[in-house]
Amino acid sequence: MAETEIYRSSTFAPVNIAVIKYWGKRDTKLNLPTNSSLSVTLSQDDLRTHTTASCSDSFTSETLTLNDAPQDISGARTQACLRELRQLRQTLEENDSSLPKLSPMKLKIVSQNNFPAAAGLASSAAGFAALVRSIADLYALPSTPTELSRIARQGSGSACRSLFGGYVAWNQGTQLDGSDSVAYSVAEQAHWPEMRALILVASAEKKDVSSTSGMQATVATSTLFQHRVENVVPGRMEGMEKAIKERDFPAFADLTMKDSNNFHATCLDTSPSILYLNDTSRAAIRICTAINSSAEDGKPICAYTFDAGPNAVVYYLASHTDAVAGVFKGILGSELEGWEGVKGRDVKAGSVPEGYQHVGEVLRKGVGRVILTSVGDGPRGVEEHLC
Amino acid sequence: MAETEIYRSSTFAPVNIAVIKYWGKRDTKLNLPTNSSLSVTLSQDDLRTHTTASCSDSFTSETLTLNDAPQDISGARTQACLRELRQLRQTLEENDSSLPKLSPMKLKIVSQNNFPAAAGLASSAAGFAALVRSIADLYALPSTPTELSRIARQGSGSACRSLFGGYVAWNQGTQLDGSDSVAYSVAEQAHWPEMRALILVASAEKKDVSSTSGMQATVATSTLFQHRVENVVPGRMEGMEKAIKERDFPAFADLTMKDSNNFHATCLDTSPSILYLNDTSRAAIRICTAINSSAEDGKPICAYTFDAGPNAVVYYLASHTDAVAGVFKGILGSELEGWEGVKGRDVKAGSVPEGYQHVGEVLRKGVGRVILTSVGDGPRGVEEHLC
Repeated sequence: MAETEIYRSSTFAPVNIAVIKYWGKRDTKLNLPTNSSLSVTLSQDDLRTHTTASCSDSFTSETLTLNDAPQDISGARTQACLRELRQLRQTLEENDSSLPKLSPMKLKIVSQNNFPAAAGLASSAAGFAALVRSIADLYALPSTPTELSRIARQGSGSACRSLFGGYVAWNQGTQLDGSDSVAYSVAEQAHWPEMRALILVASAEKKDVSSTSGMQATVATSTLFQHRVENVVPGRMEGMEKAIKERDFPAFADLTMKDSNNFHATCLDTSPSILYLNDTSRAAIRICTAINSSAEDGKPICAYTFDAGPNAVVYYLASHTDAVAGVFKGILGSELEGWEGVKGRDVKAGSVPEGYQHVGEVLRKGVGRVILTSVGDGPRGVEEHLC
Repeated sequence: MAETEIYRSSTFAPVNIAVIKYWGKRDTKLNLPTNSSLSVTLSQDDLRTHTTASCSDSFTSETLTLNDAPQDISGARTQACLRELRQLRQTLEENDSSLPKLSPMKLKIVSQNNFPAAAGLASSAAGFAALVRSIADLYALPSTPTELSRIARQGSGSACRSLFGGYVAWNQGTQLDGSDSVAYSVAEQAHWPEMRALILVASAEKKDVSSTSGMQATVATSTLFQHRVENVVPGRMEGMEKAIKERDFPAFADLTMKDSNNFHATCLDTSPSILYLNDTSRAAIRICTAINSSAEDGKPICAYTFDAGPNAVVYYLASHTDAVAGVFKGILGSELEGWEGVKGRDVKAGSVPEGYQHVGEVLRKGVGRVILTSVGDGPRGVEEHLC
């Protein structure tokens, strides 16, 4: 009977959106970054990958399925994760002969995202975090999230930050083998649970430069990039950790916007130039700037950030929901997809900031849906299996 | 009779478009720049300011008119130019009592641009160059163009480069009084007369950050700006002078595009962020990149550059007119304003590069007119007076 038994483990893993950006690798095989980065883990109620890892002697081939579509499991990155996890299981099995011999079995991995692929959100972070965490659970590995982050990083760099909830840093590390290029928790979700995020999903635009090839083009050709890495990011990492520890939103916002700008500046300085920000993005930036300049004490109450694409992610505190999300609801119209959910329904639509009617129109034309979410927790084991 | 005599002098002065950009002042009163810059003077057949400077004992007030609208002549920058020119005239008069005493007379200055204000082209360079040159001629000053460039610079920084034709550098200088922050000729128009420029005038968009305030915000807040000034521009100035002297278009194009990108990167890195490039600009960049990547030997045959706004200026050589301007004519349609002139009429409309239909559409929607022009000569005295 044992040879036909199927072992299973399932997990949810979250998306994270960086506030100090990861852009550039010093080792493309191991995904070792040129600078440290820091992110906010978003709530899995809104954005998550659900993955079931299973293994059995009865499986004859190794497979990976995402959103019901078979995926290529033979890629070097996926294989690196599987190899490392198997190795750890094998060591356990060698030290304890009572354990079932799972490491030689073929794996069947099935994943589902709870958000549309068309949302243009980098799903690889949640995807690799879920893959690594579900297999680690299947293998009953005693590894800490930081140890697993080292493995997930080899699948997709930013995936290492999705092994934690709350506020997470990825230390660039100095070792050639990447052993110290791992994620750690800066603060738990519970430390600063009021953080909210409004994602403005831009209407489909074909992305012409992937982040993988884009970042290495920047490393190779931007005259400003090295300066960012050496002289700009280190101070910002310190400042951001401090802002989070002190729950200092104005400092958090200031650094978040500056670092998004700085990262996109090095993209623009790449040859050929990479310009991820489009007119919709520019309109979102202007509205955020208008919201901040009308804030009572002149301190920012919202912060935009953009990954390698046109979607704005706007961070704000729950107490400023109407002053931030409400203004966007007023501009975008409450009938837009995304406001109908439990987090969007009660946001009070505000008026368009004076003088920003035209900018608001540009934004309305370019945004296809919104996602309202917040800081969330790290990967969770779940009993619901996908296979 | 002498007291009612009116003295007149008229000049044409050209527009220039920088290929190594001026952005940032180390002295805002004297318009002393943080880095040297280099530009191509464009043909006055297509873009020029025509100015008549007149003076008479019968004039009771000093006036300045541009395109039939009275202008404020009391601004510090205009006054600085007038004061310096008067001073030079006064010295002449003191040394030669036979000269008519023009320096105490009120000035009447009338200017006309031959291009629409709506074209969004920085007209202040041509405007101050024409103002300074027409008064210098009126006063019969023996000053060289470089000497006059020092004066025009105080009106508008980039105006100093419009005192010359062809290829012109503005040396940032080191003196506190700006005495060595002057323009000089890198090469005459006749040295490389084949240079062409296609200006894609974006449909009216309200500019929200003027270059005067924008550049100082960049100086004050960009973490990348100082690196550009100290480590990026100096080598590019040398490289660009060499490219022009050797008529090396690929090197010229490479540096032109890189420096435009680099300048806009520092704008984006400004707080609040400045993003002059819009979707029309991005489409123009992509078309240029497509044209260059399809060039036979892989060397660029066109170079985009953007000033503080969305208009692309595309440089190319006459021999590549069809391969560059022709592609844009094919995309934009030959019925668009600008192609009907003598320089545009014979450009053969080419086909849209494969895979760029959508980008072409974005460009067509965003461009309101084109201007076809070429490298041109410096200011010329003319007999046609405007008053």
